[in-house]
Formats: sequence, structure tokens, C-alpha cells
Amino acid sequence: MSFRGRDVLTILDFERGELEELFEEADVIRKRGVSGRPLEGKIMALAFFEPSTRTRLSFETAMKRLGGEAIGFTSEEAISVAKGESYVDTVRMLDAYSDVIVIRHKYDGAAKLAAEIARNPVINAGDGKQHHPTQAMIDLYTIRTLLGGVDGLTVGVLGDLKYGRAASSFILGLTHYKPRLVYLISPPQLAARREVLDQARERGLPYKEVNSLEEVIGELDVLYVTRIQKERFPDPEEYEKVRGAYVVTLELLQRRAKRELKVLHPLPKVDEIEPRVDESRFASYYEQARLGVPLRQALLLKLLG
Amino acid sequence: MSFRGRDVLTILDFERGELEELFEEADVIRKRGVSGRPLEGKIMALAFFEPSTRTRLSFETAMKRLGGEAIGFTSEEAISVAKGESYVDTVRMLDAYSDVIVIRHKYDGAAKLAAEIARNPVINAGDGKQHHPTQAMIDLYTIRTLLGGVDGLTVGVLGDLKYGRAASSFILGLTHYKPRLVYLISPPQLAARREVLDQARERGLPYKEVNSLEEVIGELDVLYVTRIQKERFPDPEEYEKVRGAYVVTLELLQRRAKRELKVLHPLPKVDEIEPRVDESRFASYYEQARLGVPLRQALLLKLLG
Amino acid sequence: MSFRGRDVLTILDFERGELEELFEEADVIRKRGVSGRPLEGKIMALAFFEPSTRTRLSFETAMKRLGGEAIGFTSEEAISVAKGESYVDTVRMLDAYSDVIVIRHKYDGAAKLAAEIARNPVINAGDGKQHHPTQAMIDLYTIRTLLGGVDGLTVGVLGDLKYGRAASSFILGLTHYKPRLVYLISPPQLAARREVLDQARERGLPYKEVNSLEEVIGELDVLYVTRIQKERFPDPEEYEKVRGAYVVTLELLQRRAKRELKVLHPLPKVDEIEPRVDESRFASYYEQARLGVPLRQALLLKLLG
Repeated sequence: MSFRGRDVLTILDFERGELEELFEEADVIRKRGVSGRPLEGKIMALAFFEPSTRTRLSFETAMKRLGGEAIGFTSEEAISVAKGESYVDTVRMLDAYSDVIVIRHKYDGAAKLAAEIARNPVINAGDGKQHHPTQAMIDLYTIRTLLGGVDGLTVGVLGDLKYGRAASSFILGLTHYKPRLVYLISPPQLAARREVLDQARERGLPYKEVNSLEEVIGELDVLYVTRIQKERFPDPEEYEKVRGAYVVTLELLQRRAKRELKVLHPLPKVDEIEPRVDESRFASYYEQARLGVPLRQALLLKLLG
Repeated sequence: MSFRGRDVLTILDFERGELEELFEEADVIRKRGVSGRPLEGKIMALAFFEPSTRTRLSFETAMKRLGGEAIGFTSEEAISVAKGESYVDTVRMLDAYSDVIVIRHKYDGAAKLAAEIARNPVINAGDGKQHHPTQAMIDLYTIRTLLGGVDGLTVGVLGDLKYGRAASSFILGLTHYKPRLVYLISPPQLAARREVLDQARERGLPYKEVNSLEEVIGELDVLYVTRIQKERFPDPEEYEKVRGAYVVTLELLQRRAKRELKVLHPLPKVDEIEPRVDESRFASYYEQARLGVPLRQALLLKLLG
Repeated sequence: MSFRGRDVLTILDFERGELEELFEEADVIRKRGVSGRPLEGKIMALAFFEPSTRTRLSFETAMKRLGGEAIGFTSEEAISVAKGESYVDTVRMLDAYSDVIVIRHKYDGAAKLAAEIARNPVINAGDGKQHHPTQAMIDLYTIRTLLGGVDGLTVGVLGDLKYGRAASSFILGLTHYKPRLVYLISPPQLAARREVLDQARERGLPYKEVNSLEEVIGELDVLYVTRIQKERFPDPEEYEKVRGAYVVTLELLQRRAKRELKVLHPLPKVDEIEPRVDESRFASYYEQARLGVPLRQALLLKLLG
């Protein structure tokens, strides 16, 4: 199936072979650059109903480096955008003006609904609690770039696996590959959702749920960290109790982790990774952010080129 | 008179022949596209003192599809833009940086004042209660595209004709043509303003003021719908009483309207058109939004090209 | 020392010869325009943690007129940008996406810190109380354009010399030249900071602190006006008492100033210059704003070209 004109709604919309094709294109862009302005005259509409500066700027950069242009609104403007109009009408308006719509939305299914209405491709830049497919693509591409591939690796996914859409998308993304084992590391209250685990199991992903980073850190080749928001805990004391068990410290990494462990994070990070880790050989999240641009360039080229 | 360098302040600044010239250019752009990047290196300043995402994005898209660029601020930023400086100074600043200024403002005359100060052309993207000339151009261009022209048609203008600048501009725009009859359909509290009616009469527009859509719907070739804002009524109960008479339902259209009736709306719409109408053959407002881009491209090309 | 890849943190980072080289490039751009799109494919990140529409739009215009592109966020978005992440991480993110970062920040040293982290050049678009180097470049370039140079001139700097970063940067910028005398005109509470005066003295700038415009206006070739913010005075009555002595009126200029006096202002201005002055031969601040674009184009070309 060709990429041309497709919607990008979940990481499961794509086959492993398609992801590989995408990653090879991103490699070419990264190594040789882009020749000319292949998307000149094309317009990307950025519809950010929820704030996400990183994702927005990464998409904008990718589009502009290809000679394309961006229009749109940020969440600060989203309320006045609507002026009471229906979401469906907002999507129709953006579809009338642009060649591709990039949507960030609070609610599950918002991107899918937009895709049903719009004539042009819709890219889900994160909606609801589960899907953020381009982030998952970047995560997999980063592992491939740093470690040659995902197959055979032991991967930890740490943090809020219940509400964090980046974590869920990454877990679903891993099902395209054959890791040795995936540890899902979270407090019980924030364990991965049933529907995510069901799909992981059906698709043959070997995973194990654990409650402590310390017990598994030594086995990991990749540690994917996400934030635990205090607000997820009804009782703040409950949060303070578990918090420490999910903070990645340099001391822990130096004492227990494999020398070649790569720590990833979709960013922004707050205090779930100790700042001293940033300068260490483990920190791979800034490289991951950088790789987001060629990956998104590759995707846009394939959808619109 | 050439378009080059002109200000676009009201729809009456243009002759019928000039509008036709503009529409022909828009047709060419729509059918054959634009060759090259005719406005490369040109900068449009978007000065939105009042929110209007649709108009802003439509202008940005038009400019960028021509190879030009946009800078500016949204209403969310407008307060800090000023930092207490005079409107006149803000306009001078924008004029120093750009090649054309597009202004949206709450007050009547704001665009005219800007045009007096600025060296470069000023386009009124809606100011005060009466003028939104590019919207009127789009409305007339849509009718021409869908029905071949305005002359001889029976046209209804529905909604808040007192405070709605799109409706006033459309009525003034119609005076360039020879419709058979124009029905101005509104609650008495929101009837068209004296100065608009005076100009309509002086310019020979045959119009009739009525209070109910139902009594005239069967005669119409075009129904231009605008929103009635609850806030316009001192007494909310008053609003609830009249409201129903101005909602366009599919049932009414199917029962009474001509088969070929085109329903227009400047968008955004809230509840003045029943959502079921959107999918019907009557709904022409999405096409109208789409036609806004080539129309604005044509205008920018003529002003700056 | 070449400009290529350098950070622009303070006006003292540059030698007089380098400034002259920059001004000559700006002259070429102003007189002959730019050929082609020398910065095509380059991305500027605008990181405005504090509002400054003028500076932001001026940089954006400069970049876009060179064929480059801009991404970024305004102060309205800055809070949600952070989502609690460290400033250092925000800078790293922008550095991952762009080729140059333009920063406006409330705190002294914010741009310097960014420059230490970022691989790409950082331009200080105003941080803290002292530094706004591109504004100082524009100010000096304006004097050079209007009066042929700074050497030998008598210059007044009026207003809040304590907290106003444009005034401090201008004073520091003057130390690259040999003016006859610089009058620092302010209420005692808002006199220039010790560290600025120390540098001025060390670098041989002949200056004199005075409290009244009227007593020196007759000697001036250039009067650089900045705003006095009421909020700087603990007691509002104190403010009202001194205020009048620092307002530039047309009457005062006509009665006492040299015919060729040039009044500059970094803009926005509020009521520190009487509006009647705007139309007079003294007003040079709009020209100064206009000259900002070619000056910033020249700087960007030299840093990135």
C-alpha cells in the first residue's frame, strides 16, 4: 500500500515493512539532505486544540525544510477559533485551505473523525489517551538508529502507562517488532490499559508488568521514560510515596544499568529524570528529538510528494 | 483604474467591471493554478485586533500559495502588542516591515485610518459593523461560480442585518448587480441599518424587508444566512421567541425551497443552520469557503503583482 | 573574526570594524536588495518568553525576506511551552529544530546560558535589564544613515536608564565610537546602573549625568528617548512630579533644539513623545524601525550565509 494520501491515525495503521521504508527515507534525508523544495506550494494546517509546542514546532520545521508552508492555530487560540462552531466545521474549514491537517486533541477518536470528513490526509499528532503515531515512529527510528534495530532487545517502558499516549503508542509500536522482552514499569494505579495489553498480547509482544525500575534496570537495552503526573493520584500522599521508585537517577544507572543502555523520553521532561543524567552517555532523548525532524520530513514527503 | 497598490476598504470602492476582472483571475487560478511564485519576497502583515481564524487562515493560505510570506499577530497577542502604544504607531510599525497590511478590528473606520497612514496597501478584513469587502467578493464570486451570475436572481439575506458586517457587506455588494429582488429577512430589532438601506436604494437595489423566512423561502435562488447572537437581545426570552423563525432546517428546505436553491454562510455557523443541511444539495457554504482562497489569491496578485 | 556561527549576546561582543562591516552590508541590502533566497532552507526559532511584537516581527520579516523560515512561540504560549520543563531543555529542543535561536527573556544572562547549550548561534533579542544588542546596532546604524556617523556628535539618552535595556545597550554601543559628549538624562531614581557607567568610563566614553532635558536639549545632535514606567516609582505622586520634565514636546524642540536634531526611540512609545512630534522633521523613530529590517537581514546573512 502506498503512503500517498493516507491518514496517519495510529501506529498500527502501518506494516513493519512500511515503517522500514519510512526509516530508510529518513536516513537518506539525514545523510544527504533534501534536494530542492519538493513540497513547495503545499500547505500544512496545524490544528492544536491541546498545547504541544514540541510536536508543533517539529512538524513545522519538517514541512518548511521541504519547501512547504504551515498555517494554523495554537491551543491558546482554539477557543476563539470555534466561536461555538462544531469540530466538524472547523475540520472542513482547514481542509478547504490546506493539503494536510495535523491534529492534536484531548479526546480519543478526534483525529479519526477528522479523517472521515477531510478530503486531504490527516495526521494524528496525539489524541486522547492512546495514540500519537508519529511519536512512536520517532521512538522506533531512534532505537534503530542508535542500536541497529528493535528485534532481540529488552525494553523498559516507565511511568504513566494508563493516561500517557506516548507510552501507549510506543508499546503498540513495539508490536511491529520482536523484542526479547518488554517490561511495563508503573505504579499499579497507572498500569497500561486493558485494550493496549490485549493488542500487545494478540500481536505476540512478550511483555511483563512490574512495579519497580530497580529490579529490571540491569536487563534493559532501552529505557523509555514518561512522566507521572501528580494529578493522576486522588491522594497526594499516595503520589509522594511511589514517586521515588520511578525517578531515573545517574547513581542508579551507573550502579545497575548496562553500559550501552539508551534512555529515551518523548519530552518535555520535568523531574522524572535527574538533570545529571542529561550529560551522561545514557541520555538519548535529545538525539531522539533531533531525529523527529527527518522522520517527519520522510512521512510528509511520502504522504504528499 | 488599476488594482495595483490600492486599498481595499469597502465593497463599494470597486466597480462591477473590476469585480468581474477579479473573478476571471480567480477562475484562472482555480482552473490552471499559479505558475511559479509570483509574490516571492513579499510580506503580508496580519493585524487581527479581533479574533477571526477563518479569515486569517484564508489570507495566509492565499499569500503562501503565491510564494509570499506572512507575519503578524492574533487577537490573543493584540493587547501586549500595543503596550499602550497608539493604533497609529502600530500601523506604522507594520507598514515598515511589510508590503500589505490585512486588518481586522472592532471599530468602524479602523481600516480606513490605517490606509491613510500606511504607504502600502491596506485590506479591510472586517472592521466595525458594516465592512468586510473580501467576504462580499467571495460571496458574489460563489454565486457567479454556482449560478453563472447574480443578475435576475432572487436573493434572501437572513439573520442579524444590524450588527453583522458580512451581511451588510453582502447587501452593498449586491448593489453592483441587478438581482430581481433581495429579501432582507430579520427580526425587527436586527433589521438592516439606515445607512446600508439608503445606499441600497440610491444604487437601485430592489429590496424588501420581511420578518419570516418561511414566507419567502419558495422564491429564493440564493439564501445568505448569518448568525443571530443571543447577546443582541436585552431580554433572553425575546431571543428564544424569535429564534425558531430564523433557523434553516432541512425539512423547510425540502418542503418549500426551489430544488436549485444555494444556501451560503460566511462561517463559522453555530445553530442557525441545522447540521442535516450540511450534507444536502442546498449547502454551498463549504464550497464558498474553498472559493475564498483563489479569490484572495487573485486580489493579492492584482494589488501586489 | 568572522561573523559566521557567532552568538550575538551584547553589543560589546563586536568590534567597531565589525559593526561597520555589518552596516555596509545593510546599506547594500537597502540599496540593491537581496539577490535570490540566500537563506532558503534555514529555520529561525523565535523564543519569546517576554512579549515583544516589534522585535519579533522585525526578525521574522528579515529572515523571510532572505528566503528563510521562522518557527517559535510567543510569550502567550511560553507558559504552556514549558509544561514544567527546564529552560535548558527548551533551548535544547529549539536547537534540535532550527539553525539560529532568537531569544527574548526577562532575566539577565538568559541568552548567554542558551548560547552555552545550543550548537547553533543564539541572538539576544533583549534579556534582563542591560542587553539588547541588535537594537543597539539599529540605533547606531540609524545615526550613521541619517548623520553620516557617530563621532563628534552630542547625544542625549533620555528616560529610564536603570531598567531600560534598550537605553543601556545604546550607551554601551556608543562606546565603540567617539561622540563629543553623551548626556544621560533621567530622574535620579532611574539613573544608569553602576556596571554600565563603569564600562562606559573604562572604554573612554565622555558622558555627563543630568536630570533635565531642557538644560541640554540645545546642544544635542541626537536625542534617544525611552519610556519611564510609572511602576518604577514606589510612590505614584513621585512619578507625577518628575514626569513632565521628561516628555518631549514639539514646543520644546521648536524653541530650543538644533534644526537638525534627530529624535530616536526604540518603540513602542506611549506618552513620552508628544504625538505632534511624529509629523515634525525631528521624528526619526519610524525611519529607525524601518532600518531595523535591512540591519537584521545583514546580521542573519553574516551569521548563517
